Amino acid sequence: MKRIDAAEIKAMQRLYRINLMNGITGYKSANLIGTKSEAGIENVAVFSSVTHFGSNPALIGFVLRPHTVPRNTYENILETGYYTINHINKGIIEEAHHSSAKYDASVSEFEQTGLMPEYLDDFMAPFVAESSIKLAMKFEQAIPVELNATILVLGSVEAVYLPEILIEEDGFLDLNAAQTVAIGGLDSYHLPNQLQRLPYARPKK
Amino acid sequence: MKRIDAAEIKAMQRLYRINLMNGITGYKSANLIGTKSEAGIENVAVFSSVTHFGSNPALIGFVLRPHTVPRNTYENILETGYYTINHINKGIIEEAHHSSAKYDASVSEFEQTGLMPEYLDDFMAPFVAESSIKLAMKFEQAIPVELNATILVLGSVEAVYLPEILIEEDGFLDLNAAQTVAIGGLDSYHLPNQLQRLPYARPKK
Repeated sequence: MKRIDAAEIKAMQRLYRINLMNGITGYKSANLIGTKSEAGIENVAVFSSVTHFGSNPALIGFVLRPHTVPRNTYENILETGYYTINHINKGIIEEAHHSSAKYDASVSEFEQTGLMPEYLDDFMAPFVAESSIKLAMKFEQAIPVELNATILVLGSVEAVYLPEILIEEDGFLDLNAAQTVAIGGLDSYHLPNQLQRLPYARPKK
Repeated sequence: MKRIDAAEIKAMQRLYRINLMNGITGYKSANLIGTKSEAGIENVAVFSSVTHFGSNPALIGFVLRPHTVPRNTYENILETGYYTINHINKGIIEEAHHSSAKYDASVSEFEQTGLMPEYLDDFMAPFVAESSIKLAMKFEQAIPVELNATILVLGSVEAVYLPEILIEEDGFLDLNAAQTVAIGGLDSYHLPNQLQRLPYARPKK
């Protein structure tokens, strides 16, 4: 077993460090965040930090690196107050990954990647038509993380769109059937297979 | 496609809502957090919210629900300033899940679950011997999320322990070879298979 300490991590070549540090937390959620600017320019970008923060109210967070990631997503969310979260399925990993390319704010990543924008009901932000699980999100709060100048963006779920067949009797969502993928590191896409669901854990007598 | 809005989510039966809301963000990381109280009682608990916050400095967050999750983990971190993060591998999903049972603070979850505590170098908090990827963490900051009374706990990586063979030439960590699992919803364990690594995305000309 190898030990790598903080000084060695700091001394690593930048891309090596980014690859390794993005892997050590394990698998990450794979989502596309869809937004639209007030001027009407659509944006879609891949995020691997979408995290459950609560069920009642249904609250979801994601992490933004303002100085490295294209800021269009964040600027559009602040301008309009709304965004969408869309699962990346096995069939669209290349298009989804392409959305991480740094395009100018005047360009729609939907056009560049080939992903299809979709508007549902009266929600102002674009969903990703190819995604099977889509969330309409309302911006709630941006919490600055001063330790490293990232921002935790929190939003509440306005609506969930999905094939009803994916929801089991007790509310469990069959991500396996949805072919939702997981991300490893920065750029590796994985299709998880269910091993098993485990019963609610109670203390041993 | 079914639409479920915020009012319907709020009206759901509690467990149904928790199951569904824990699924809609996609797959989650599967980790065991190891701590020890000042009195010397070891604790290990499963967390699915461990999230990458940055590589330089290497910063990792996780979400605590103070009123529902056993608080031993958090209390020990505040008392001692240190904890470990350990990947859940395919071979220990039942033991790992068992650690979510609500034991009294006087009980070691290591003893109850059968997971083996392991001490490495001079680090005070216990690692999980069965995990192939283990992180020594230093507590940095607790950020309260007032929207729903959760807490974002941020820590820096003091050291990483892992089999060197899992690290590829460019720093990419082979989670597939490590048999690290992912969590779906509250209680479903999945083994991801790599589809492909995609090259750094550049704008189309």
